[in-house]
Amino acid sequence: MSERLVVIGGDAAGMSAASQARRLRKDPADLEIVVFEKGDHTSYAACGIPYHVAGLVPSVDDLVVRTPAEFREKQQIDVHTGHEVLGIDTAAGTVEVRDLAAGTSRTEGYDQLLIATGARPVRPPLPGIDLPEVLVVKDLHDADVLFGRAVASEGERVVVVGGGYIGIEMAEAFVLRGARVTLVDALPQVMRTLDPEIAALVERSMADAGVEVRTGAEVTGFEPGAVVLADGRIDADVIVLGIGVTPNSELALAAGIEAGARRAIKVDDHQRTSAERVWSAGDCADSVQRITGERLHIALGTVANRHGRVAGLNLGGVEATFPGVLGTAITKFCDTEIARTGLTEAEAAAAGLDAVSATIEGRTRAHYYPGSSKLTVKLVGECGTGRLLGGQIVGGPGAGKRIDTVATALWARMAAADLIDLDLAYAPPFSPVWDPVAVAGRQLAARVHVDAGRKNPS
Amino acid sequence: MSERLVVIGGDAAGMSAASQARRLRKDPADLEIVVFEKGDHTSYAACGIPYHVAGLVPSVDDLVVRTPAEFREKQQIDVHTGHEVLGIDTAAGTVEVRDLAAGTSRTEGYDQLLIATGARPVRPPLPGIDLPEVLVVKDLHDADVLFGRAVASEGERVVVVGGGYIGIEMAEAFVLRGARVTLVDALPQVMRTLDPEIAALVERSMADAGVEVRTGAEVTGFEPGAVVLADGRIDADVIVLGIGVTPNSELALAAGIEAGARRAIKVDDHQRTSAERVWSAGDCADSVQRITGERLHIALGTVANRHGRVAGLNLGGVEATFPGVLGTAITKFCDTEIARTGLTEAEAAAAGLDAVSATIEGRTRAHYYPGSSKLTVKLVGECGTGRLLGGQIVGGPGAGKRIDTVATALWARMAAADLIDLDLAYAPPFSPVWDPVAVAGRQLAARVHVDAGRKNPS
Repeated sequence: MSERLVVIGGDAAGMSAASQARRLRKDPADLEIVVFEKGDHTSYAACGIPYHVAGLVPSVDDLVVRTPAEFREKQQIDVHTGHEVLGIDTAAGTVEVRDLAAGTSRTEGYDQLLIATGARPVRPPLPGIDLPEVLVVKDLHDADVLFGRAVASEGERVVVVGGGYIGIEMAEAFVLRGARVTLVDALPQVMRTLDPEIAALVERSMADAGVEVRTGAEVTGFEPGAVVLADGRIDADVIVLGIGVTPNSELALAAGIEAGARRAIKVDDHQRTSAERVWSAGDCADSVQRITGERLHIALGTVANRHGRVAGLNLGGVEATFPGVLGTAITKFCDTEIARTGLTEAEAAAAGLDAVSATIEGRTRAHYYPGSSKLTVKLVGECGTGRLLGGQIVGGPGAGKRIDTVATALWARMAAADLIDLDLAYAPPFSPVWDPVAVAGRQLAARVHVDAGRKNPS
Repeated sequence: MSERLVVIGGDAAGMSAASQARRLRKDPADLEIVVFEKGDHTSYAACGIPYHVAGLVPSVDDLVVRTPAEFREKQQIDVHTGHEVLGIDTAAGTVEVRDLAAGTSRTEGYDQLLIATGARPVRPPLPGIDLPEVLVVKDLHDADVLFGRAVASEGERVVVVGGGYIGIEMAEAFVLRGARVTLVDALPQVMRTLDPEIAALVERSMADAGVEVRTGAEVTGFEPGAVVLADGRIDADVIVLGIGVTPNSELALAAGIEAGARRAIKVDDHQRTSAERVWSAGDCADSVQRITGERLHIALGTVANRHGRVAGLNLGGVEATFPGVLGTAITKFCDTEIARTGLTEAEAAAAGLDAVSATIEGRTRAHYYPGSSKLTVKLVGECGTGRLLGGQIVGGPGAGKRIDTVATALWARMAAADLIDLDLAYAPPFSPVWDPVAVAGRQLAARVHVDAGRKNPS
């Protein structure tokens, strides 16, 4: 008998899951797959929006990975865009769907339901938040609006509120457009996913590019042509909000489904929610931190795709589990690459771990090779056990993806000392003979041992 | 009582060991360290020579990491350049040293002896091998000679004999100088450390840059202005040999020290030779392949430095072991990056393993991001166990250093399927959302399981 899978949300997680399930259960007579997407697009690269705004990606269409028509034709996945799900009845196994264009609603049944409603940018209820110059970065419609503003922004005053990934990337986009950019963050540092002294390297690189970075600056509202701070105001032709996202979990929670970290939908390691036959994946769902075991909400494209794959495998009949996240992430500001994985020193301390760190300065290439530039590697480890807990890298071209070595070592639960032995690739255009990650590992190994009263082998 | 460490050879391995020992035993009255180096230099970056020849590194002095004077002054390491060791008496604990400038010899005693005599380019005894146009790439003297020839080589006919790392890099150097380059290799492929179809990608990239690649072409001799092949001759203004190296182990073997792989000096995991109080490190010593446990001779800067560190730790009083090599290596030809680690499919088969492979084409960055280019990842795994055995990557800028993810996974003895779960870094300027290494891991995981008759989880 045919089973019916309904997917709410047609972006990365939802369409990954749908595609994965279809690959395993090819016959629509065996598994019918229906997707309801509120917007106009499926599977687009939201992470690419800043680069479209910067002018590096000419057309917003380049960001569309696969269209609804392609899903229908190539995979027999029945995608309905412009359809918003208004309610879920887990007892009846139905969803109430509104066709936004027609203005009509209907009830659709499911055997399996996947909630992949994503997340939305935080829009704090401040005075003036709805002014037309206050923009957010979420979907391709926002991309169009931002692009339109950015094209003619040379010499304009742009204020980016929030110094996370989106904030950094939008600041870069407007710098490349020739705008005069101010970045405001309420915290004492940008990039709260980095330790303060590493974030300071990012702030310096932004300042070097002419961005005015104002940390510890609380925004209290917006006025036409200005951002209002607790202690003043900043003139602004364009205001971009990048102060984080919140999971679109209301629909699920209203249906009685259990909440997890930060009011995201709680999922088990199979991506199952607390309700029978209801699954969740992507930015609306929570995850488990692999090192600490703590639940957290982490809205990243990599996690959304991996969630979706695991849900899709299970829905397709192959048992699969999601093994947790390290929080590996990377971005860049102009020529400065920024990457992190695992726990920062602050996060490790907050998790009650006896953490130490080692920070080294190295180079991306042999010192004599053209284009060799500086990089800083900070590694965090646990005293006594010597276990690696996390890493942060900031530096010139070629620096950032080195975080994958740290992430892989973390995944394998390596000790700091293991990094010294790794057989990493060296040639002058790529690295010093001792890769900076190994050098940092050596220093960290000395620390975790010294601090544990053992002999220093460095 | 003072101990006396004599080091034969003042390059990477020898000086790493000497420096490491000195860091642990700071007082020369506790440990006297004497280095005899036949040439004029210590600790220079031989790997940088092709880039000097190419004109990318202006001065050969840039390749000198630390001078003999610096070792003497900063580390109380007594370096004697221009001193060749002619014999070792392991029973007496002495070496016979010749001062090449003075033309005198003397006997010097040691308590500990480290043999770090390196390797030398193979010079087959072919007719014409000593012609002045036949050049090798070994030391800074060769660098000077090659640089002098390269500067004026625009339009000249250059024949590179041997398609290994040095051959590829010298071909690139002369291409950058505007020469007309032919690369000749006796094997059916360049880069014998890659599987044939991956090596073919390298050959194509060289051909695209105008290099004539002649594989399966056996050199039978040299004539003034020509390389003689079994089936013809190639006119050549400059001939560069890059057909591998042979360990400088004669001195050790003549002293009765046991030979290991390919007549390199056999060492245990502490870098001890078969003789009491005699150690060896670097290109003259052999190593153990970490996956197969087989002894091999691998002449790479990374290995030399790591050998040297382990020897130096032991000589300094901190027990340390060398954990083996994966044979991780990287190079580039113009914009094509080439990297490998672990076992190729051919090597795995030769080692008696039941190997399968998966090869994928991916991109270095998001498809829409400027500078995104193609890359090919081949992974090799073991049927049934699913264990990862090796990887090869060829592709545009940003492709090559991804091998470190594979090398780290290999080091941790991960299975192919583990690569899928890795939390690798993604942002459009750095990677597709699924890193190509993870994509290849997914395909390989399907293969190793299918071939073992298990369910396909891809």
